[in-house]
Amino acid sequence: MPLIAKPQTMHFAEALALASGAVLRAYDLTYETYGTLNADKSNAVLVCHALNASHHVAGSYEGQPKSQGWWDNMIGPGKSVDTNRFFVIGINNPGSCFGSTGPRDVNPETGKPYGASFPVCTVEDWVNAQALLLERLGITQLAAVMGGSLGGMQALSWTLQYPDRVRHAVVVASAPNLTAENIAFNEVARRAIVTDPEFHGGDYYEHGVVPRRGLRIARMIGHITYLSDDVMNAKFGRELRAAVAGVAREDYRYSTQEIEFQIEGYLRHQGDKFSEYFDANTYLLITRALDYFDPARAHGGNLTEALAAARAKFLLVSFTTDWRFAPRRSRETVHALLENRRDVSYAEIDAPHGHDAFLLDDARYMSVVRSYFDGIAEALA
Amino acid sequence: MPLIAKPQTMHFAEALALASGAVLRAYDLTYETYGTLNADKSNAVLVCHALNASHHVAGSYEGQPKSQGWWDNMIGPGKSVDTNRFFVIGINNPGSCFGSTGPRDVNPETGKPYGASFPVCTVEDWVNAQALLLERLGITQLAAVMGGSLGGMQALSWTLQYPDRVRHAVVVASAPNLTAENIAFNEVARRAIVTDPEFHGGDYYEHGVVPRRGLRIARMIGHITYLSDDVMNAKFGRELRAAVAGVAREDYRYSTQEIEFQIEGYLRHQGDKFSEYFDANTYLLITRALDYFDPARAHGGNLTEALAAARAKFLLVSFTTDWRFAPRRSRETVHALLENRRDVSYAEIDAPHGHDAFLLDDARYMSVVRSYFDGIAEALA
Repeated sequence: MPLIAKPQTMHFAEALALASGAVLRAYDLTYETYGTLNADKSNAVLVCHALNASHHVAGSYEGQPKSQGWWDNMIGPGKSVDTNRFFVIGINNPGSCFGSTGPRDVNPETGKPYGASFPVCTVEDWVNAQALLLERLGITQLAAVMGGSLGGMQALSWTLQYPDRVRHAVVVASAPNLTAENIAFNEVARRAIVTDPEFHGGDYYEHGVVPRRGLRIARMIGHITYLSDDVMNAKFGRELRAAVAGVAREDYRYSTQEIEFQIEGYLRHQGDKFSEYFDANTYLLITRALDYFDPARAHGGNLTEALAAARAKFLLVSFTTDWRFAPRRSRETVHALLENRRDVSYAEIDAPHGHDAFLLDDARYMSVVRSYFDGIAEALA
Repeated sequence: MPLIAKPQTMHFAEALALASGAVLRAYDLTYETYGTLNADKSNAVLVCHALNASHHVAGSYEGQPKSQGWWDNMIGPGKSVDTNRFFVIGINNPGSCFGSTGPRDVNPETGKPYGASFPVCTVEDWVNAQALLLERLGITQLAAVMGGSLGGMQALSWTLQYPDRVRHAVVVASAPNLTAENIAFNEVARRAIVTDPEFHGGDYYEHGVVPRRGLRIARMIGHITYLSDDVMNAKFGRELRAAVAGVAREDYRYSTQEIEFQIEGYLRHQGDKFSEYFDANTYLLITRALDYFDPARAHGGNLTEALAAARAKFLLVSFTTDWRFAPRRSRETVHALLENRRDVSYAEIDAPHGHDAFLLDDARYMSVVRSYFDGIAEALA
């Protein structure tokens, strides 16, 4: 029987104080849950999302069989994170464009969409919002918090902000902060959006337009960094795009603007699709949250000191060809946790897919996560 | 005594047939020479330029001491390529915006700037144009042809198109073709330019504007790929940009559009500078020439077969942290040449600077090139 997902929304009337000093006044959080919360509310698993995902983690919507959640291969009945045993919560962060209050929504103080005035949120702010939702659900301690990429940063931050409320943290394809190169790619993407004439300083909603050009470029850049050079060569190589579907083309067109290579067509398609559904202000906000995350910062750059607050047990996973969040970045976290004598499992999965691997089916990856959650489930029983 | 450079221009009234089937009618080539051509014209070294460089390879212009050529650390009196012994020629390729006929110039057939109608040129086309200039100079055989990156592709192509006219080829930080990832980065840069509303289909000259937004983005992307992650971390890391020069800043501004990190300020500055002087149509043309270069293509992808035509001796150099043209790409060329029993020297320089290393001073790199040219000079004497 397929897992049917159903988004819910919870309203928060009390202002959320943000790291920046700003506050988010009344706001909604959208979330989904899968499985059943047990009697002592000890089997809850919170899943945190990355840049372009949402609360829709698993299952599909009634009558929409293709609407699978972004981690549906990982989470569901009988899957690595088994919803027959765990009560899994997917939550959408403030600032998103998928349900929780974000820049597209009306600012009650002005009666207009927030636009660029939506307050900048950090990973820590999101974790605080998630904690409030869990309180409302009566969950005082998570069996586990998990996430990949930016989601992994939230999982790590949970163990520092609320050390007593998390028994396990599963941090996949993540890093304790961004490198200069990571920030650089984010910045180019942001500049592409902000300098699009249809951005209108972030108030494009009022102009009835969308900075689609900028979003396309941002997504194309992002997409290149999600894939490995290897997988791009294997999938596209230097193949020319067929003039007619199914018919190989041998000759160059000798054009600077037409699509010559398959990789170009693929990237343009990704950019086009993305620009149809993703909000530009959300893109700016989420990339900034990525840039800002740096728990070691308050400790003079000493990650070991920063992670001393954590009490959870950890599983970290990285992928060999991920150059956006390379294995060595996960190892930094592992080492800092070990120096604090924390209980850490670490798997470095040899996968060709680059950063995207964290979203893909890979038998070893899935089985590492399954074993880890089996252990958590046994302790529950 | 500093080397004084002086650009010269040669006019070609006869049309240049291009790989695309198009022709470039009358055109100019701009070039510079350093040193003295010997009596039997056997000491000529041709230097080919990469994406954003020109014929101005060495020396500086009269009264402009800061106008050093882009390879001035390598080429000059007493330097690795010693202009006391060699007659060095720097040449600007057709399609450029630095002197030779390009998209900014008036198309004699229409009386308007070529703009987007400037014919697409390939590496092979450029080599043909360079060969015509050398014929005019009475040079029937080059002591060496050399270049880095795209310039290295031209050097390699010389050995295939004119095997009897080149004794040595020095191919630095280059590749026998681009990978899918390389093409992908070029494509994003091109899309940023082409979708800039001020591109006007390439005819922005007539509108009195420049697609500066697109050029900025293109340059920022390029710049990230020229540097290594290591050197970016060493140079910028996660340092915040000082509010006032020289005063460190500790606190985030919590802004999506202001500059937070030094790397952002650096990239924006690079983008701004570039957009002031570089022609957008030239950017499209040159990145396409990069995409198209693939001598193995006519041989079913067999590089060994493709390089069988070469008669020259080779020096190849790569840099360990260059991820744009990684050492393994140079090794492909080395192996294919060795399989043809060609005379090949290869140096893999351990340098932290990424692709940019080919332009920088590095004692080992400079000495490898010096030794190689010493050998060429001895054979001349």
